[in-house]
Amino acid sequence: MKLNKILPLAAAAAVLPTLGLAQDATPGVDASTDTIFILNSLLFLVGGFLVFFMAAGFAMLEAGLVRSKNVAMQCTKNVALFSLSAIFYYLIGYNLMYPLGTWAVDGVLSGVWGVAILEAVGITRDAADDYGYASTGSDFFFQLMFCAATASIVSGTLAERIKLWPFLIFTIILTGIIYPLQASWKWGGGFLDANGFLDFAGSTVVHSVGGWAALTGALILGPRIGKFSKDGRVVPMPGSNLTLATLGTFILWLGWFGFNGGSQLAMGTVGDVTDVSRIFSNTNAAAAGGAIAALILTQVLYKKVDLTMVLNGALAGLVSITAEPLTPTLGLATIIGMIGGVIVVFAVPMLDKLKIDDVVGAIPVHLICGIWGTIAVVLSNGDATIGAQLYGIVVVGIFTVVASGVVWFILNMVMGLRVTEEEEINGLDKAELGMEAYPEFSKL
Amino acid sequence: MKLNKILPLAAAAAVLPTLGLAQDATPGVDASTDTIFILNSLLFLVGGFLVFFMAAGFAMLEAGLVRSKNVAMQCTKNVALFSLSAIFYYLIGYNLMYPLGTWAVDGVLSGVWGVAILEAVGITRDAADDYGYASTGSDFFFQLMFCAATASIVSGTLAERIKLWPFLIFTIILTGIIYPLQASWKWGGGFLDANGFLDFAGSTVVHSVGGWAALTGALILGPRIGKFSKDGRVVPMPGSNLTLATLGTFILWLGWFGFNGGSQLAMGTVGDVTDVSRIFSNTNAAAAGGAIAALILTQVLYKKVDLTMVLNGALAGLVSITAEPLTPTLGLATIIGMIGGVIVVFAVPMLDKLKIDDVVGAIPVHLICGIWGTIAVVLSNGDATIGAQLYGIVVVGIFTVVASGVVWFILNMVMGLRVTEEEEINGLDKAELGMEAYPEFSKL
Amino acid sequence: MKLNKILPLAAAAAVLPTLGLAQDATPGVDASTDTIFILNSLLFLVGGFLVFFMAAGFAMLEAGLVRSKNVAMQCTKNVALFSLSAIFYYLIGYNLMYPLGTWAVDGVLSGVWGVAILEAVGITRDAADDYGYASTGSDFFFQLMFCAATASIVSGTLAERIKLWPFLIFTIILTGIIYPLQASWKWGGGFLDANGFLDFAGSTVVHSVGGWAALTGALILGPRIGKFSKDGRVVPMPGSNLTLATLGTFILWLGWFGFNGGSQLAMGTVGDVTDVSRIFSNTNAAAAGGAIAALILTQVLYKKVDLTMVLNGALAGLVSITAEPLTPTLGLATIIGMIGGVIVVFAVPMLDKLKIDDVVGAIPVHLICGIWGTIAVVLSNGDATIGAQLYGIVVVGIFTVVASGVVWFILNMVMGLRVTEEEEINGLDKAELGMEAYPEFSKL
Repeated sequence: MKLNKILPLAAAAAVLPTLGLAQDATPGVDASTDTIFILNSLLFLVGGFLVFFMAAGFAMLEAGLVRSKNVAMQCTKNVALFSLSAIFYYLIGYNLMYPLGTWAVDGVLSGVWGVAILEAVGITRDAADDYGYASTGSDFFFQLMFCAATASIVSGTLAERIKLWPFLIFTIILTGIIYPLQASWKWGGGFLDANGFLDFAGSTVVHSVGGWAALTGALILGPRIGKFSKDGRVVPMPGSNLTLATLGTFILWLGWFGFNGGSQLAMGTVGDVTDVSRIFSNTNAAAAGGAIAALILTQVLYKKVDLTMVLNGALAGLVSITAEPLTPTLGLATIIGMIGGVIVVFAVPMLDKLKIDDVVGAIPVHLICGIWGTIAVVLSNGDATIGAQLYGIVVVGIFTVVASGVVWFILNMVMGLRVTEEEEINGLDKAELGMEAYPEFSKL
Repeated sequence: MKLNKILPLAAAAAVLPTLGLAQDATPGVDASTDTIFILNSLLFLVGGFLVFFMAAGFAMLEAGLVRSKNVAMQCTKNVALFSLSAIFYYLIGYNLMYPLGTWAVDGVLSGVWGVAILEAVGITRDAADDYGYASTGSDFFFQLMFCAATASIVSGTLAERIKLWPFLIFTIILTGIIYPLQASWKWGGGFLDANGFLDFAGSTVVHSVGGWAALTGALILGPRIGKFSKDGRVVPMPGSNLTLATLGTFILWLGWFGFNGGSQLAMGTVGDVTDVSRIFSNTNAAAAGGAIAALILTQVLYKKVDLTMVLNGALAGLVSITAEPLTPTLGLATIIGMIGGVIVVFAVPMLDKLKIDDVVGAIPVHLICGIWGTIAVVLSNGDATIGAQLYGIVVVGIFTVVASGVVWFILNMVMGLRVTEEEEINGLDKAELGMEAYPEFSKL
Repeated sequence: MKLNKILPLAAAAAVLPTLGLAQDATPGVDASTDTIFILNSLLFLVGGFLVFFMAAGFAMLEAGLVRSKNVAMQCTKNVALFSLSAIFYYLIGYNLMYPLGTWAVDGVLSGVWGVAILEAVGITRDAADDYGYASTGSDFFFQLMFCAATASIVSGTLAERIKLWPFLIFTIILTGIIYPLQASWKWGGGFLDANGFLDFAGSTVVHSVGGWAALTGALILGPRIGKFSKDGRVVPMPGSNLTLATLGTFILWLGWFGFNGGSQLAMGTVGDVTDVSRIFSNTNAAAAGGAIAALILTQVLYKKVDLTMVLNGALAGLVSITAEPLTPTLGLATIIGMIGGVIVVFAVPMLDKLKIDDVVGAIPVHLICGIWGTIAVVLSNGDATIGAQLYGIVVVGIFTVVASGVVWFILNMVMGLRVTEEEEINGLDKAELGMEAYPEFSKL
């Protein structure tokens, strides 16, 4: 039944204990310590499966935005990169990022090498790794999904021309080492955290890292054949399936509730669950703001609305609110998202001018809006300083560019990053998979 | 491990406290007041993200049921209408519907004007808006999704011929004013509620309102060119992608567990969670009943099964159970859904006879089955009277038709609702977007 | 905010009660009995909606893997089979499997005939069916989804040639009788359970049963026209939409967290929620392992990666871990999944050699990996014996083959299982539905 909101106190009185023991009927009783542990773990599990589903969102977004001759390859890359992330975050990344109980902040080269180990089966509270908090298994599950999301960002930018295997080897190094190492500087309690750098759910730690790695790769890889004509024109290469790109955007939007909401990291108190509720609402508001800003702006600038800009506008809003989804009001969250949407509309043609070929617009969305979102923390969070935010952005940026640049460079030397011209023209599906995504439909 | 259901008491004994304080081991202990608050809020958050995902469901259903030349536009409309709903429900709608603590039932023109304000960050129980119930942020998040769903219903009916911008302006008024105003009459504790009108999750308040607004728009807009030939024949215009329509239906079905289950509005007691469980089961049963009724009926009537009817049958079952998903038995829920499925199979050709062009069948599904579901409350809920139900249906219907009619009329006068004949024939994607959903695939 | 994992104890101290009653501040307090009931029910509800969504996953996977002329039919079958499962599991299956309170282990023919009855509305703890455990409504909802999943497995194998109505009648018998009867032997506390057979979430009880029923049907039905040429060659019939097949795989992967995690059947204690967390992580690891094994193996064997094998590899990993997702370490779970992926890569061509035509690869994935997963329980669970596992596999296999074989045989005699040659060549969409999934796109 829909309760009338005018009656909540009466309704609450009706649901409050009348038969239980005395202390239960008394207002102001905390959840028990067991219940807090369970609810915190549950937040990680629900948040985790929502973020997991973002892998499907990235896959659909990217498959929809590439040309049909590369769709099966894009699907392959997305399934494979998620799977490799899962394996290498388990093998190396998790403990490198913050090994439970054994981690020590020694600066950059802290962390331990070793596989992630979950609590034993059927554990009791006394034996739980961290009874005052949440289960290690739920934390691992949740954190793994962030690592995989970072890798997903890269695949879109480099689509339609990078070879499968060097891309996957890069993914292994990104998810096993690069991501967890820099994440430990903030979320593992490292020097960026000590320096007052704030990044609630990862505008910098996740999105800009993916964006920097994508940008570095795009520079080394070069643009797709024919993207930039000799007379300086930018040749549009429209996505083959905008319906699936739309679906992918909605799935990512859904997953972002887990991404940002789960990053509250606790749900066992009144304050925590209320904060998670704020985060859900703000995250949604920012996405809406980003989409509407791109909608209006493309209408004004080009006299026609651009659906792919609207989709990227929504994603830009989401990335922009990710560094601080808690403290803004709903109105400020909407505005932060809107600015993200504006950024994307201007950044996409700017990248074209720089002859950087980003197939799905991941660099504007994840890198530039990731930076914007990280700066925007100062608008609502009194603990943030512009200096600490910029320092964090720059340090993570330099590290990621250098580290991923070295990896891309070596891979290019050793095995070559790019398919042959003939393979690129025929499509990666035929060249590297020998199968097509839509084999029965005749192409124009 | 799967417990044997034959052993639940033994199993329960095993999981019951043995180490805790005495009161915990005693059967019959309520959840603490904090835990109740957390669980109620959690229901809103989980229910809310499920209903959010219905936006993707509507988008896929509609994109699958329009012709390919209008698919990108249909995607654009769905992303934009959701985003505008989020913004204007925040700016106006939420407080108009039921401003927390300040609302007064003054009849029709109650409510306050003002933006939604969530609880402060890191609130304590003493400062929570409504400690005896749930967090405002979770309630806002949940209620917003219902408002957006109402708008989603309209876009399908009017597809393939309405201009983007007047449609979006209508969406703003629908979600900012029309929906919240009439919703306040029931869910805000207004005169329909006082009059004994029952509508658990919105067969009338959400679905029929969307349906009436769609019907009014369809009448003013007129049918698509060529839909009704001069000799009176109805020309089929089959949807371009029934796989995505199927996916959309499944996503809507999934979201409906949040739609109906979340409308229990509480999960912190044994009674509430058991009711939510009944609602999940009944909602599923009604959808199944609607699908099977349409399956059998189209086979009997037309000697061939009609997939789009089966999909709309499932949705019809869902709408039909929405006014009362709690009190029916599983058997009655199945039958209520089946009648919904039957209604759709007969109502679709009936609308064709009336030369009302409803592209996706939203009027039969959401309006007619919304009415049916609202009446069906009397079958299982002893508190319902046929008089109060009909009164609610009629009042909401007249209000929505008049209000949306005025808006459609003004929009038509001021800026024109309909694209030009040439634009309609070429498709809205080219005319208003300058892009196509499936640019590479050759069309028949 | 992301807490630093290095600080969890301090953080926990901060969130621990400081204002509540004394017992709340004391570490080591169980959740209250009400809270345990609520959390157990919640696990079923969340697990249940995740498993529900697998119906969409199966639909997309199968629609993507059949040829376009059969896509609308495959969608129809998937919606209809789920709906019929819901109705007949309610009418017969649930009580046949384990009627609450009235069930008695009398060997094979136990169970009662009768419809499922949920708890009354607004029940109190004293009147709950099973206050020490969870609500009946949540249990029914969860168990129903497993029954439906079993039926989904069958539709893929028999696609593109079986008539709609005999397939649906088979579904009724499978979900109303065959599945619940054999499931009662294990999960209803029957003789397989008494014999020490272990199957946590259904590698045998769900997946192999679907697989056996599919295999039996495939043998009786025979291969598609042209699949095996007269000179012994296997003619590839590539799926029409690999993007949707990829989406379907991701949806199934998502749903599997509910499938395996929910099968812990309880979440109200520290031990239970920690186990659920392990299960989520292990389930993900096995899927990742399966996908990567298939990726590498197809590259090595065929010099090209095969996307459909990678997708089936992920599903194979999921099926393989389903019999025991709790006790393995993350590493062992990855390996169990990898072996599943290897099995699929070898089993698909093996079935081709046997001239068994399995359109989507459901027999390798669900049957063969279901057997593998059931055996693999002995690798990590000390309570498992290879003898009891093999006994369970064989008993369930023989029963399902005989029971479904009889049903297929009778259906073939009475109404014919297979469409005519002309109908098969033209596609089932035109023959049985009179509509197409993609009517506007020209086919090669």
